[in-house]
Amino acid sequence: MTRWRLTIEFDGGPFMGWQRQDHGPSVQETVEQALFRMTGELATLHAAGRTDAGVHALAMTAHVDVVKHLTQHRLREGLNALVRPAPVSVTDVSPVADDWHARFSCIGRRYLYRILNRRAPPALYKGKVWHVPVALDAEAMAEGAMHLVGNHDFTTFRSVHCQSASPVKTLDSLTVERTGEEIHIRAAARSFLHHQVRSMVGCLALVGRGRWTPEDVRTALEARDRQALGLNAPPEGLYFVEAIYP
Amino acid sequence: MTRWRLTIEFDGGPFMGWQRQDHGPSVQETVEQALFRMTGELATLHAAGRTDAGVHALAMTAHVDVVKHLTQHRLREGLNALVRPAPVSVTDVSPVADDWHARFSCIGRRYLYRILNRRAPPALYKGKVWHVPVALDAEAMAEGAMHLVGNHDFTTFRSVHCQSASPVKTLDSLTVERTGEEIHIRAAARSFLHHQVRSMVGCLALVGRGRWTPEDVRTALEARDRQALGLNAPPEGLYFVEAIYP
Repeated sequence: MTRWRLTIEFDGGPFMGWQRQDHGPSVQETVEQALFRMTGELATLHAAGRTDAGVHALAMTAHVDVVKHLTQHRLREGLNALVRPAPVSVTDVSPVADDWHARFSCIGRRYLYRILNRRAPPALYKGKVWHVPVALDAEAMAEGAMHLVGNHDFTTFRSVHCQSASPVKTLDSLTVERTGEEIHIRAAARSFLHHQVRSMVGCLALVGRGRWTPEDVRTALEARDRQALGLNAPPEGLYFVEAIYP
Repeated sequence: MTRWRLTIEFDGGPFMGWQRQDHGPSVQETVEQALFRMTGELATLHAAGRTDAGVHALAMTAHVDVVKHLTQHRLREGLNALVRPAPVSVTDVSPVADDWHARFSCIGRRYLYRILNRRAPPALYKGKVWHVPVALDAEAMAEGAMHLVGNHDFTTFRSVHCQSASPVKTLDSLTVERTGEEIHIRAAARSFLHHQVRSMVGCLALVGRGRWTPEDVRTALEARDRQALGLNAPPEGLYFVEAIYP
């Protein structure tokens, strides 16, 4: 048996999310089925993070145990041929130690959130950005973001379906930057609560529109109450960028 | 009557190209039909350039004459509502002089060509890049590109369907730059022959793979013969970036 580490890029648009679901296609199932067709093995893929429906990944990390002997080249090429036409691409594979775990060995996760901030809707990046037609003040958003960095109880920014043992997390960084017509929000932490990035982006968008002051973000955080949340940003702007390992 | 200048972003994937066709959807027809539904007028849209099937535009410029009185806001919002769900977005509209012409007044055109140069196929940018799985030498490509800059007879790089009066054109710049896994080729000229950018990119890709030397590009150019062409790059990597006016 070999434990393989996989790096996977995917367009979340057609999927119900990363995790296998009864009611629709998932990235996990797509890759697991491709592997089954290659090896005849019903193996389970474990990922660094479970993304929601519509959320994309530039480089999700996962692992899977395979009994059949395969070369790196054969595994990657085989999976990429068999996942077609799903918008999933295995960009890298490498053998890892048997106790290496994509989720539990992970010491850092990075996300990017893309807002298209112009009046006209997206054409080229449809389904790949959150379209906000009202002008946003990126500097005010960056100021609001600073209140969230650090070790906090993020109950306000947590989905009711969140399975994390504790709402206390350390947010290492949260930056807001305008590049042309887009605003890019980047978040890094050891781990995130369910919907945390989208909840934070939603509040920052309220700051950008001038409905909230930057300080209102701190007030919402300190409320430790989901009702204090302004708005959950939609999934299509969110990208899982990278999982970091020791 | 008002002559309107429109700036249009589109994903070329589902279209037979810019120009109205009998056998399938075009960007021109999509926008003309939206305008007809707004105004009842059968107006013709004139563009700075006619892109092929699958070619994208970040900002195509076009003009159209409209009798009905409309505000800028109303025209842009109306068109964007009515082109749905086609991946077309009117990002800007402005009134121009009656003798202003999107094609004939244009003094410069810029294109971008995106190559995804990695082993694994694209997932997020499927249909938006040319996937070249073999490693390309971007520096050799840049060297080859320099032979094409300037005033030349571009017969080698011209489609048999090209309607231009002369094969002699001045290529103002042609740059090749690697950014991560992508190679970006940027071309600027007053005007281009049909398939010129894709033909040039095709030859540069041969240089990048080491099949041609950078000097072979000059030899192909000087042959003034379509048979000397190495390869036509596919449409999905090509973007019309901008039309320039005095």
